[in-house]
Amino acid sequence: MEGNEMIRLNCDMGESFGIWKMGTDEEIMPYINMANLACGFHASDSLTMNRSVQLAKKHNVTIGAHPAYQDLVGFGRRTIQCTLEEIKSKVLYQLGALSAFCKAHGTTVSYVKPHGALYNDMMRDENIFKAILSAIASFDKNIRLMILSNPNNEAFSYTAKIYGIGLIYEVFADRNYNDDGSLVSRMNPDAVIHDEMLVIERIQNLKDRGFLESINGHRLFLKADTVCVHGDGANALEFIKALQKVVI
Amino acid sequence: MEGNEMIRLNCDMGESFGIWKMGTDEEIMPYINMANLACGFHASDSLTMNRSVQLAKKHNVTIGAHPAYQDLVGFGRRTIQCTLEEIKSKVLYQLGALSAFCKAHGTTVSYVKPHGALYNDMMRDENIFKAILSAIASFDKNIRLMILSNPNNEAFSYTAKIYGIGLIYEVFADRNYNDDGSLVSRMNPDAVIHDEMLVIERIQNLKDRGFLESINGHRLFLKADTVCVHGDGANALEFIKALQKVVI
Amino acid sequence: MEGNEMIRLNCDMGESFGIWKMGTDEEIMPYINMANLACGFHASDSLTMNRSVQLAKKHNVTIGAHPAYQDLVGFGRRTIQCTLEEIKSKVLYQLGALSAFCKAHGTTVSYVKPHGALYNDMMRDENIFKAILSAIASFDKNIRLMILSNPNNEAFSYTAKIYGIGLIYEVFADRNYNDDGSLVSRMNPDAVIHDEMLVIERIQNLKDRGFLESINGHRLFLKADTVCVHGDGANALEFIKALQKVVI
Amino acid sequence: MEGNEMIRLNCDMGESFGIWKMGTDEEIMPYINMANLACGFHASDSLTMNRSVQLAKKHNVTIGAHPAYQDLVGFGRRTIQCTLEEIKSKVLYQLGALSAFCKAHGTTVSYVKPHGALYNDMMRDENIFKAILSAIASFDKNIRLMILSNPNNEAFSYTAKIYGIGLIYEVFADRNYNDDGSLVSRMNPDAVIHDEMLVIERIQNLKDRGFLESINGHRLFLKADTVCVHGDGANALEFIKALQKVVI
Repeated sequence: MEGNEMIRLNCDMGESFGIWKMGTDEEIMPYINMANLACGFHASDSLTMNRSVQLAKKHNVTIGAHPAYQDLVGFGRRTIQCTLEEIKSKVLYQLGALSAFCKAHGTTVSYVKPHGALYNDMMRDENIFKAILSAIASFDKNIRLMILSNPNNEAFSYTAKIYGIGLIYEVFADRNYNDDGSLVSRMNPDAVIHDEMLVIERIQNLKDRGFLESINGHRLFLKADTVCVHGDGANALEFIKALQKVVI
Repeated sequence: MEGNEMIRLNCDMGESFGIWKMGTDEEIMPYINMANLACGFHASDSLTMNRSVQLAKKHNVTIGAHPAYQDLVGFGRRTIQCTLEEIKSKVLYQLGALSAFCKAHGTTVSYVKPHGALYNDMMRDENIFKAILSAIASFDKNIRLMILSNPNNEAFSYTAKIYGIGLIYEVFADRNYNDDGSLVSRMNPDAVIHDEMLVIERIQNLKDRGFLESINGHRLFLKADTVCVHGDGANALEFIKALQKVVI
Repeated sequence: MEGNEMIRLNCDMGESFGIWKMGTDEEIMPYINMANLACGFHASDSLTMNRSVQLAKKHNVTIGAHPAYQDLVGFGRRTIQCTLEEIKSKVLYQLGALSAFCKAHGTTVSYVKPHGALYNDMMRDENIFKAILSAIASFDKNIRLMILSNPNNEAFSYTAKIYGIGLIYEVFADRNYNDDGSLVSRMNPDAVIHDEMLVIERIQNLKDRGFLESINGHRLFLKADTVCVHGDGANALEFIKALQKVVI
Repeated sequence: MEGNEMIRLNCDMGESFGIWKMGTDEEIMPYINMANLACGFHASDSLTMNRSVQLAKKHNVTIGAHPAYQDLVGFGRRTIQCTLEEIKSKVLYQLGALSAFCKAHGTTVSYVKPHGALYNDMMRDENIFKAILSAIASFDKNIRLMILSNPNNEAFSYTAKIYGIGLIYEVFADRNYNDDGSLVSRMNPDAVIHDEMLVIERIQNLKDRGFLESINGHRLFLKADTVCVHGDGANALEFIKALQKVVI
């Protein structure tokens, strides 16, 4: 069984809004590989975006657009039922806005990672997945789309190819998985793995042997281009530094 | 005295918001040359922007970004004091967002015309003018900036050249001008010229002989690349059709 | 079988937003009995609310709060998943805001009619119904709640009594009903009855004999305190005037 | 020269927004006397308002409405030019909304303290001061208005009496004053007094002897019903506790 060559760390960044600060972007940025930058719909604003792109550029961090449903007060965590044309339009709008800051700072948007409810809806509803692919393809086919890796990536990969869009497979090392490769629901007290040593072990295993253990102990072989890390939390910086050593 | 070679008609378009419609874009679009498209800060939303770009493209109308202060409820008509970095960021954000829809529909943003209070502030405050130039220059130096033509365009033109940005000179044919080339304030009952025949005559004169008469009857020689027309009003369509014949 | 004593006309009013106008409130207000006034979450703004309350007061129209999910761009027509505490808070916020304008103009909010998706969710989910009742009860028990009348009003009425809140039963005379008393979905081409004569006949029947015919011709006996009319549409004013004669 | 009988501590509270937290309301609330609660225009949201009122009530803290210009991204710190009817409407809207939460929790709004740019504009422009008085008077004449105390309070007091509204005089003990009683501009590096011992001394003096020293050492006799304290900052809680002992 093969492992995963290299696993890159992606992190939601640039999620301050106006005067309200979130996270410790300046501290974390040097230790991650991919920054998912909010685009003003669930968090961030034009000034924050400008500075976030600048910061990512400075540390040679790959920049991804992190588009969301338009819902600041709910932080994009709630589904807002949209037509497919609306979803496509919302992704284009946010992707274009972030792209302008990248252009201004001599860099580019490398990928799109939908945020919160839009990410979940994309994984659940093929039409939403297609609407997002279509938005990206109409803007720039060099931009890839990050999705949740699962044992049946083929269906997603097949569709993405039709649109000419490459996929980035993401694994949540600190989340428990069901046997079918879906995430254990956050309703469930076992949804999140809080033991950092265990999380590091899981990522090590994912890299070397290619699998994660499901909550029932079954091996889930998952393609893992990247794992998601979090910039908040008391110990975030130390933990991310520790992970960096494992994944390289 | 030379006239103005060709005067193009520009019109604020795509200013609906959600369910609220404004203007008669579908009727007017075929008869204008330049569409100033709202970018979601004073009007419009991502879906409306998608459709507005589509409509402009269909009628071969040149597309301009119409960025504004972030103020939907005030329609961008009120100054919101911003730092220069904020103004630059807000212009970049909106320019990028519109640009994405243009890219998706195989066209481009050709120019920027700041909206409402931002337009007035740009004409009044050289630093705001520079912040807007800087935003455009950092995004794409092929994009031009539309400003209010006045007898002393040289100062603006000189600054724009430093940023490498071309200017488009706009005249308001239905507004009275003071002797110094500034617009008569809207506080003044004579601010707007309601007689359509007179407006057409003024434009004809501007084209053939190169000047407008100020409110005191003085000749103002104004470079006029474009005049601003309005898509609302009972008679808008007929009036615009009549203008088209004059300006070509 | 008894009829309905008096059926009052309620209408969504005050749904302009900033510069964008909706409806013809000034024309319609004299001919309706109950004005459902938007509270700034799906439509309206503080200035519009002030003027709408003034207008309703002038024509002795009963004022109702028309709270919604917070979604201007979607006009409150889309469910935004909220906790019950959030729903209660959102209703209180909007009810309080409208109430201030009423107080300032020497009148009061008489009832609450949730708008759009919130109305549908209230009818579908008893907990949301209770959250809304709880908001009203904590503010003022003299304020009633408007709900969709159905053949099984008892369950709703029983719950409302526990909260000490009176109900107002609403019928949609221009919508087709299923045999179980639910509205035919708007997905169905037969959802709306466009024949105005037929709508008037249905209301006449509802008043005199107490029932509406379902889409399959069954008699639905419905308590009808009010029917909902619409202020937009080419013929709205004439139609509302015609209805006024029937319902008195 | 008489001192100030009792000086109460007021503090801006409830300024979180959605997921973004600001301040340490739970820690600070027990030690202040008056909580200026944001109303959703510059900060806060309906859920936060509900909880903030609950918290203030629990600690018997007097509740004030903290209305602002509608500008989340700018935190209400920038003037947005409004008509007087708009200002009146915006104050009524926010006052009513907060009032609903107070009513629901069995308490009331005792005063209004305009926030940020609206506070400054009120002190600068008598018409704005009157618009705010008029909003309060039309809602509830028992509600008082907090203003910046200055050596010429009579003009304000005279006007407020016409509207039947009581005033609360506020002093900023950590800000330097010019000789005319105005605050030293924040542009000036000496605007804020960072030495906490000095601030406490100033308040002690204000209480016992009735004056503050201006930046040039002149005595400014100021009526001081309350001083403004800040809930953020590393040492905020300890400092507020120290102040409490002085002012009682």
